[in-house]
Amino acid sequence: MNWSDTPLTRRLGLRYPLIQAPMAGGATTPELVAAVCNAGALGSLAAGYLEPEQMREQIARIRALTDRPFAVNLFIPEPFEVNSDQIDEANALLEPYRKELDLPNPTAAPDRYLPSFTEQLAVILEEGIEVFSFTFGLPKPEEMEALQDREILTIGTATHLLEAIILEESGVDMIVAQGAEAGGHRGTFLGAREPILVGTMALVPLLVKHLNTPVLAAGGLMDGRGVAAALALGAVGAQLGTAFLNCQESGVTPDYKTAIKEATETGTVLTRVFSGKYARGVKNRFINEMQPYEAVLPGYPVQNALTRDIRAAAAERHRPEFLSLWAGQGCPLVEDGPAAELIERWMAQATAVFDQ
Amino acid sequence: MNWSDTPLTRRLGLRYPLIQAPMAGGATTPELVAAVCNAGALGSLAAGYLEPEQMREQIARIRALTDRPFAVNLFIPEPFEVNSDQIDEANALLEPYRKELDLPNPTAAPDRYLPSFTEQLAVILEEGIEVFSFTFGLPKPEEMEALQDREILTIGTATHLLEAIILEESGVDMIVAQGAEAGGHRGTFLGAREPILVGTMALVPLLVKHLNTPVLAAGGLMDGRGVAAALALGAVGAQLGTAFLNCQESGVTPDYKTAIKEATETGTVLTRVFSGKYARGVKNRFINEMQPYEAVLPGYPVQNALTRDIRAAAAERHRPEFLSLWAGQGCPLVEDGPAAELIERWMAQATAVFDQ
Repeated sequence: MNWSDTPLTRRLGLRYPLIQAPMAGGATTPELVAAVCNAGALGSLAAGYLEPEQMREQIARIRALTDRPFAVNLFIPEPFEVNSDQIDEANALLEPYRKELDLPNPTAAPDRYLPSFTEQLAVILEEGIEVFSFTFGLPKPEEMEALQDREILTIGTATHLLEAIILEESGVDMIVAQGAEAGGHRGTFLGAREPILVGTMALVPLLVKHLNTPVLAAGGLMDGRGVAAALALGAVGAQLGTAFLNCQESGVTPDYKTAIKEATETGTVLTRVFSGKYARGVKNRFINEMQPYEAVLPGYPVQNALTRDIRAAAAERHRPEFLSLWAGQGCPLVEDGPAAELIERWMAQATAVFDQ
Repeated sequence: MNWSDTPLTRRLGLRYPLIQAPMAGGATTPELVAAVCNAGALGSLAAGYLEPEQMREQIARIRALTDRPFAVNLFIPEPFEVNSDQIDEANALLEPYRKELDLPNPTAAPDRYLPSFTEQLAVILEEGIEVFSFTFGLPKPEEMEALQDREILTIGTATHLLEAIILEESGVDMIVAQGAEAGGHRGTFLGAREPILVGTMALVPLLVKHLNTPVLAAGGLMDGRGVAAALALGAVGAQLGTAFLNCQESGVTPDYKTAIKEATETGTVLTRVFSGKYARGVKNRFINEMQPYEAVLPGYPVQNALTRDIRAAAAERHRPEFLSLWAGQGCPLVEDGPAAELIERWMAQATAVFDQ
């Protein structure tokens, strides 16, 4: 198997058809992104929650550590409603957690829910980023045009075929097929009332069959066997997230890493109690206790803003029972060590699969 | 890739590490089982709902059509409760469907819910069947011993790691890892209150890592790319069910085949409204209308017995909206044609994956 001769590796000069997934929970430090790129794969900076100046800082740090291409990932903004009664109700439900963490109760609604996508995208365009990946929808036509004018490789995210077709029609260069096993937020942007959960094994070949756009597989891939399986299904590359969570350069806390390591394959759940949008993470006290109120909580990104202080304090004070421990169903196979070592081990495994 | 040199193919003298899954909805006709075996793969007769004399007849028909080994699959019996109030309540909910189908309302509870497992197993032992596969649990130690004494290859079904470990400790020869994508009944026998849904991509390598017993992959595999992906993940074989549903020898009705062909990857759902046990099938009117009452319906096999007349009449009278259209998430990739042709095409595909 000649790894460097696939549509993904050729286009970006990669050694391996492997992408480190963007993970907006703080995992994708500049050190991780750069280590992945230096090892011959594609690193991704998850910038969805970063302000433009934070993006510029982190991009500069990545560039100080590698001269290879990397991806920056953003969340496509969606319309949302702010309902003050619903916010008061949610804050009442959150009060016991704030009390346990010695946090003050908020006296007003958050003044800001998300950074400005327009400003975030401007950073990508101005910084000459090589790869722009995104989720929760698709950029506007004029934004796509601006990206194409600068020859930035665009990667959209689909959780079912109709989304993939719409992404293809918008002119994206590649499409991530996000299977049900994947950790973190579902990328679903069409029909998202209930989580749409098509397994990676079924989703990837379906998209490959119906699209002209190259497909990247995501969800449940944890090592070289996952990479090989993704390519066997017709994907041109494999995107691994959870598999990088516990590596040395990952930015998640030691508590988070322990939770991932100790979780079982049945220990993750889809929940909207943290952010208002369905995401897969390790079950903990906050999820269990808030689950009964899931239907009345505000949507994304309102609920996300409301729980921000709780999540930040929980991380700081070693209270992972209140933390969003995003992870995929493959978490029991997570490994530690430097990212470069993991990548070398996985790709040797993948090579062995094809050389048998 | 030398397909005939895997633990599965060596043991049974197969050409391909491919199993046609048992599907108890009538799909696995003797003609299908024999065609699969004659093509070099392993056919499976789904005998869970068959009376011993029906089993003997169908086994004889298979043997008239092939001299190759085949599998017979049974349901391990579970304790269940018959509550007459709950049955009356369920029958009240079923009345409108009986009316639409001109069926009489039952005047008494079913006198029998399932064939006798002891008698079914006796057929397997007496007939000298080569492979016994099972789901919903595991045989008693003395039953396992009787199977082993006759050198019958035993294959259990697991939907998560703990089940697989218990199966391994019971001495089974191989274990099917049934991923979330799979059609039909979930094999879950531990912790089954809510459906346990680990995707094939995450489940297979986890079981391979923790077991000494060879693993077979099931769920979402629809063609040679699926077979290749299963082997890449470390499975010794691939079990495909939905992929055979629409083939020429399949016993499902033309209406059923049409429904499978027209379903989308998001068009299947897990439901217990037909049988009392969670199973994946194509959403239809019966599922949509009965879903609100799912929690109050009797468990398996009581609900299964209660809906039997409705399902039989629906099949006969071309009313697929009342039929249990079991299918996996891969259903949009279903193909038609003779089973032998499908198998040849898939294995050429799988070979191409490894020869690239």
